[in-house]
Amino acid sequence: MRTKESNGCKRLNLRQTAAYLKKHNNYIILTHASPDGDTLGSAYALYYALNEIGKTACVVCPDVIPKKYDYFARPTDHVSRENATVVAVDVADVRLLGSLQEEFGGVVQLCIDHHISNTEYAENLYLDASAAATAESMYELLMQMRVNINDITAKAIYTGIATDTGCFKYSNVTEKTHNIAAKLYEFNIDAAEINRLMFDTKSKKLLQLERMVLDAAEFHFDDRCILLPVTEKMQTETGCSGTELEGIAVISRSVDGVKAGVTVKQTDTEEFKVSLRTYPPIDASAICKQLGGGGHISAAGASVKGSLEEVKQAVLRAVGKALEESYAGITADK
Amino acid sequence: MRTKESNGCKRLNLRQTAAYLKKHNNYIILTHASPDGDTLGSAYALYYALNEIGKTACVVCPDVIPKKYDYFARPTDHVSRENATVVAVDVADVRLLGSLQEEFGGVVQLCIDHHISNTEYAENLYLDASAAATAESMYELLMQMRVNINDITAKAIYTGIATDTGCFKYSNVTEKTHNIAAKLYEFNIDAAEINRLMFDTKSKKLLQLERMVLDAAEFHFDDRCILLPVTEKMQTETGCSGTELEGIAVISRSVDGVKAGVTVKQTDTEEFKVSLRTYPPIDASAICKQLGGGGHISAAGASVKGSLEEVKQAVLRAVGKALEESYAGITADK
Repeated sequence: MRTKESNGCKRLNLRQTAAYLKKHNNYIILTHASPDGDTLGSAYALYYALNEIGKTACVVCPDVIPKKYDYFARPTDHVSRENATVVAVDVADVRLLGSLQEEFGGVVQLCIDHHISNTEYAENLYLDASAAATAESMYELLMQMRVNINDITAKAIYTGIATDTGCFKYSNVTEKTHNIAAKLYEFNIDAAEINRLMFDTKSKKLLQLERMVLDAAEFHFDDRCILLPVTEKMQTETGCSGTELEGIAVISRSVDGVKAGVTVKQTDTEEFKVSLRTYPPIDASAICKQLGGGGHISAAGASVKGSLEEVKQAVLRAVGKALEESYAGITADK
Repeated sequence: MRTKESNGCKRLNLRQTAAYLKKHNNYIILTHASPDGDTLGSAYALYYALNEIGKTACVVCPDVIPKKYDYFARPTDHVSRENATVVAVDVADVRLLGSLQEEFGGVVQLCIDHHISNTEYAENLYLDASAAATAESMYELLMQMRVNINDITAKAIYTGIATDTGCFKYSNVTEKTHNIAAKLYEFNIDAAEINRLMFDTKSKKLLQLERMVLDAAEFHFDDRCILLPVTEKMQTETGCSGTELEGIAVISRSVDGVKAGVTVKQTDTEEFKVSLRTYPPIDASAICKQLGGGGHISAAGASVKGSLEEVKQAVLRAVGKALEESYAGITADK
């Protein structure tokens, strides 16, 4: 990767990033808000690796870490802000630091990421947009640093890779992704149990919520779009909330013929979180940008204010336009 | 692998099997009934490979091959029974040949399989029970034979491996599985599209059926068992049937705390197909054997005659006993 300066952000290559990590000390490792397996897996892999080579480090997450990550995400030491090296992992935009943005937004010294949309807010950036997950880059970094990987580090890396690829299902997977996974199997990671926790563990109440969501499902634009509303009422009645609802978006991308799967989740009386899952040629990131959000080409999101009806119409307008541009003659909604 | 004689069935090792395949000609390749990705992927990979080295071959499937496998499962030449070499792939028991059992049951010259439960009905058997899929063994066989793999062969092998591992999710996956997957990515396989077809493509009507099934879901034995009934009425009302219903069993294994997920699918007025998905220490194969069926330790099935209520009780008795043996004090059903 070339080294370039942009917005005062210095691009580092793999070797330079490994050298940077070996040179500094007292690391504060930041994850993004609403933490997922990749930001947590990458952060903890780095934490354990730095510990392994005698560095002081801590992981700081803007939100409570979901219990399901307990098998690798353990409480870390405290590292004082003074003389600390602040590293953000899998954080594409400074706003994604959420509650940590005010304290750390302006002082991130190194960002390790795989999002092509990275806004270059950090002093130094290691970005490999070809990596399926930041955890994939993290594995390569640790190899470059010649750090010993142990079982828990391997579990953290595997988790990041598995969760960001839908368990090796999506188009971001490459030969390298599988080669790294093979290497991780040399450790005692119990990948099947990790995958069960990450992909196949839904609560009884979530099953109930899914039934309600399916009841309310709407098809639009010649069935090329499915819209799944998750209202506050459904969340209250079933007791399902937050990250528990992530799986709903997966349903929206799994219906035959659907090119745009929309989940509209109520987060406040007049606010909804829109999650969009698309198939080529529909660009989820472009659609969500119009709604004030962003993300990847096949998975993106936005927070939209308004009533359910207003939010639905706003999303459907944007989705309809994208579908119209790609598929002539399906503009008329059913 | 050792070479042993048993029931007149000769065990071959990898090298011997490759030599066998190179020596013979005019192959009739048989898959099991209700064909899945592994039996079809393995059969077609072998078919293309044999073609590649100038052998005549055909694939014969006891049932109609579902359309979703069209990207590699194409009509093959006809091979006459005379002087044919009959090979069964991924067929653990002669009864699994279904409608082909009468014609071919007694004349299978070579069986290539990965089921530990293989009944050794063939003249020669190559069995690697450590393989995640028969397609994994098939890849190794083709390498041993030094056959050129092309894109369609790679697609077939990838399909077998992906489908039998829940896309690299289950405990049968090993370092080798990922290493082979990495090799397959060197070809133009479009794995993401294969995975979309195999895992993330449900019809609108299936979505409707899932809602009905969730409505009828029953929890038993302190929620360690979920039972999903798929009645004839549900199938008729939604128009869903056959292999379309495979995904229901996946739901049954994905509920938190559930150790035994049961799907009871009506196949006739007084007949049900039981699909069982379990987590350690519950042995699905042992439970289904009691019901006259069989399978793997974590996924097995049986065909049971009786009314829905009778079948449910028979399954729950067997599951309850297994749970009781593993978890003291949860015998009382709710």
